[in-house]
Amino acid sequence: MADAPKANAVVGQSGGPTGVINASLAGVIEEVCKHPEIKNLYGAMHAVQGIVKEEFVDLKDLSISVLERMAACPSAALGSSRDKPDNEYCEKIFNVFKKRNVRYFFYIGGNDSANAAHIINVMAAEVGYELRAFHIPKTIDNDLLVTDHCPGYGTAAKFVACALMGDDLDNRALPGVKIDVIMGRHAGFLAAATALGKQRDDDGPHLMYFPERPISMDQFISDIDSVYRKLGRCVVAVSEGICDMDSVVWAKKLAVTDEKDAHGNIQLSGIGSLADFLAREVKTKLGVKRVRADTFGYLQRSFVGFQSPIDADEARRCGREAVKFSMTEQSGSVAIKRIGEGDDYAVDMVCTELRNVAEKTKSMPDEFINPQGNGVTEAFINYASPLTGELPKTVYLGGYPKI
Amino acid sequence: MADAPKANAVVGQSGGPTGVINASLAGVIEEVCKHPEIKNLYGAMHAVQGIVKEEFVDLKDLSISVLERMAACPSAALGSSRDKPDNEYCEKIFNVFKKRNVRYFFYIGGNDSANAAHIINVMAAEVGYELRAFHIPKTIDNDLLVTDHCPGYGTAAKFVACALMGDDLDNRALPGVKIDVIMGRHAGFLAAATALGKQRDDDGPHLMYFPERPISMDQFISDIDSVYRKLGRCVVAVSEGICDMDSVVWAKKLAVTDEKDAHGNIQLSGIGSLADFLAREVKTKLGVKRVRADTFGYLQRSFVGFQSPIDADEARRCGREAVKFSMTEQSGSVAIKRIGEGDDYAVDMVCTELRNVAEKTKSMPDEFINPQGNGVTEAFINYASPLTGELPKTVYLGGYPKI
Repeated sequence: MADAPKANAVVGQSGGPTGVINASLAGVIEEVCKHPEIKNLYGAMHAVQGIVKEEFVDLKDLSISVLERMAACPSAALGSSRDKPDNEYCEKIFNVFKKRNVRYFFYIGGNDSANAAHIINVMAAEVGYELRAFHIPKTIDNDLLVTDHCPGYGTAAKFVACALMGDDLDNRALPGVKIDVIMGRHAGFLAAATALGKQRDDDGPHLMYFPERPISMDQFISDIDSVYRKLGRCVVAVSEGICDMDSVVWAKKLAVTDEKDAHGNIQLSGIGSLADFLAREVKTKLGVKRVRADTFGYLQRSFVGFQSPIDADEARRCGREAVKFSMTEQSGSVAIKRIGEGDDYAVDMVCTELRNVAEKTKSMPDEFINPQGNGVTEAFINYASPLTGELPKTVYLGGYPKI
Repeated sequence: MADAPKANAVVGQSGGPTGVINASLAGVIEEVCKHPEIKNLYGAMHAVQGIVKEEFVDLKDLSISVLERMAACPSAALGSSRDKPDNEYCEKIFNVFKKRNVRYFFYIGGNDSANAAHIINVMAAEVGYELRAFHIPKTIDNDLLVTDHCPGYGTAAKFVACALMGDDLDNRALPGVKIDVIMGRHAGFLAAATALGKQRDDDGPHLMYFPERPISMDQFISDIDSVYRKLGRCVVAVSEGICDMDSVVWAKKLAVTDEKDAHGNIQLSGIGSLADFLAREVKTKLGVKRVRADTFGYLQRSFVGFQSPIDADEARRCGREAVKFSMTEQSGSVAIKRIGEGDDYAVDMVCTELRNVAEKTKSMPDEFINPQGNGVTEAFINYASPLTGELPKTVYLGGYPKI
C-alpha cells in the first residue's frame, strides 16, 4: 500500500437523514484535522449533487461550538440527495475530483451510498487515479450488511420506544385499539424497537408486524381481537413495509400515488393511508368503538434533542475511523463489530469491502421474531437494548393497592 | 368560611392525557400528606367512572420513588375518561362521596372537568353537604379561560417545536413541501408553538394555519406556491381544526367516520386523512414532486422523557395549590397568573370560580396571529417561549463559507 496521498478530501451525506448522521460528519471533520495529508475538506452540499455542481463548504473552517452543536442535531447538515449516480454521473464526479485534486472520498449513507462509493472507486482504479473511497454507514432501518447495527438506528429506536411507552400509557388511560405505523420498508428492526420500553406484563405494544412476515388481514384482525378480549385494549406496532400473504406490500395495494424515487421505491412515509386503512378494518370487522392510528413519519428520523448517547458516540467514531482507515487502506465501509454483550456492551470498528455493503440489505434474523410472527424474542431485546441508552421507567397506578 | 373538615378526599384525572397531568397528581398527593384534615386520599381510576364503581387507589401509600417517577411520566396514571356526567351520574358520584365521607374533590382536567366539578359542587350545596371541589387545569390545547396558560401546553409545545426544528432540517436536506398536522380542535396555540424553535430567517414552518382563521383552498395553495417559488421548499404547520371559509372544519368535510365522543366532538386525531388530503391538493395543483404530510397524533401529548421542566413544575404547583386552597376556600379552579415576562418570567397561582372555567374555551387572541392569518407574531413568541424551557440550537451548513 502506498503512503496516504497529500491531497484534498470530499465528504457528503446521502439518503434519508437520521438523528446522528451529523455526528458521523463531525467525526470525519475532527479526524481529518489530525492528518496533515489531507489539505482541504470539502463538504459537498446535497451529496453527489454538490460534487458535480462544486458546491462545497469549507469544513476545516467550522468553529468547535458549531461542530458540537451540529453533532447533537438531527438531519443532514450538508443536505442530502436521493440521486443514484449512473456511469455518466460518476464520470462528472470523477472529473471534479481530478480538477480539485480530491484523493479522499467519505460518503455517509445507506447501501445505495456504499454502491455509489463503490462505482466511483472502480472508475478511479480503471484509469489509475489514486482515490481512497470510504463509506460510513447510516440508516434508521438498520438493514445494512456486515455491520452489527447501523448508526442512526439506536436514536430512532429510542424515539419509537419512548413513543410506544407513552402511547401504551395513553391507551391504558383511554382504552381502545391503537395502531402505530413505524418506518421500515424491508426490515422490521425499527418496528421491533417499539418493544424496548415494555416494563409490565401487559404493556404494549401487544402485537408487532414486520416486513419479514407476511400477514393476512384475517390473521391481523384475529390477533387484535384476541388481545382486546383479554385486556380490553390493544396497542399494535406495524412496519410500513408489511405485506399480505401474496407478498405485496399493503401500502402498495392502497397507494393513491405511484410516486417513486430514483431508486424505484414507492412512497411509504409521509402518508397516513396505511394506518387509516388498518384502523377502518379493525373498526368494521371487530366493532371496537375507539380505534386510533398514527403514522410516526419523519419524526422518527429527525426529532431534535433526543439522540441515544451511545448511538451518537458510535456514529462519531464511525466517522473518525473512516478517516483513520483511509490512511492505510484504499477503500472500504466502516462496520461496527460487537465485542461485548449486556452490561459489558462494547464495540470495535472494522473495515469491510464496499461491495459487501453496496446495494444489498438485510432483514431481521428469524431468531428475533416470535414463532407467531407478531412479536419479538428475548434475543432481539438483548441485541437492541444497549443501542438506545437507558429508557425512563413509567408508572400506571391501575395495579396498585385499592382502598 | 368554616374550618376545613376532617374527612377523605378523591382525586381524578379526566379528558385527554398530557405530558404533565401526572405532575399535577403528584402535587395533590404530596400536599394532601401535609394536611392532617384529609385522612384518606382516594385515587379514582378512570375519573368519574372510578368514583361510581368505587375503584380507588390508596394514594397516600405510594412510595416517594414511585411518586417522582410518575410525576416525570406522561399520560394519566389513574386512567382517564371522556364521560360527561349528567345529573343522574352526578347523583351516583355524590352518593359515593357521602358513603365514604369524601369532603374534598380534586379534578384534573379541561373545561369539561371543571364543569363536572361545578355540577357536583352545586348538587352538594343544594342538599347542604359540605364539599370542597377544586379543578386543576390541564390541556395541551391551552384553551381554558382565566389561566394565563394551561399545564400540559408547555410540554406539548416543546414537542412540536423540536419536531418542526427537525422537520425543517429534514426538508432542507431533501427539499419539497412538507405539511404537519398538529392537534388543536378549536384553538391554534399548539400549531403556533411550532414556530418557537425558528432560528434562521428562512427556517420553517414557513406557513401556519389555525382554527381561528378560516382559509380557502385557493389561498392555502397560493401561500405555499409563493414560499416554494422563493425558497425551493416549504414547511407548513396546520391545526387539525382548520376550517374552510364557510367555517366548516376541513377534516369534517373529509370525514370517513362520524364517530363522536360523549361531548359531541368529531374525531380529528388518530387519523391521517386531513394531512393526506392537503398533500394531494398541493401535489395536484402545484405539480410539486416531493410533497409529504405527517399527522403528529398522540405523540404530542404522551411522549415519554420529554417534559418541559417549567411546565412540569407549574403543573405540580397547581396540584399543590388546589389542596392549599381547599383548606380555606369552598371551591374553585386553579389558574396561573403571569407576574413576570421574558428573563424575569414568573407565575403565581390563583383561585377562580369553577363556573368561570366550566364548558367555555378560549381561542388565540388576534395579537398572536399575523395579519395574513398564516403565521404568528412576536407577541406570541414572547408569550409562549418561557413555557417550553430552552430549546436546542441547530446547525445547517448551507449558508456557511464555500471553498
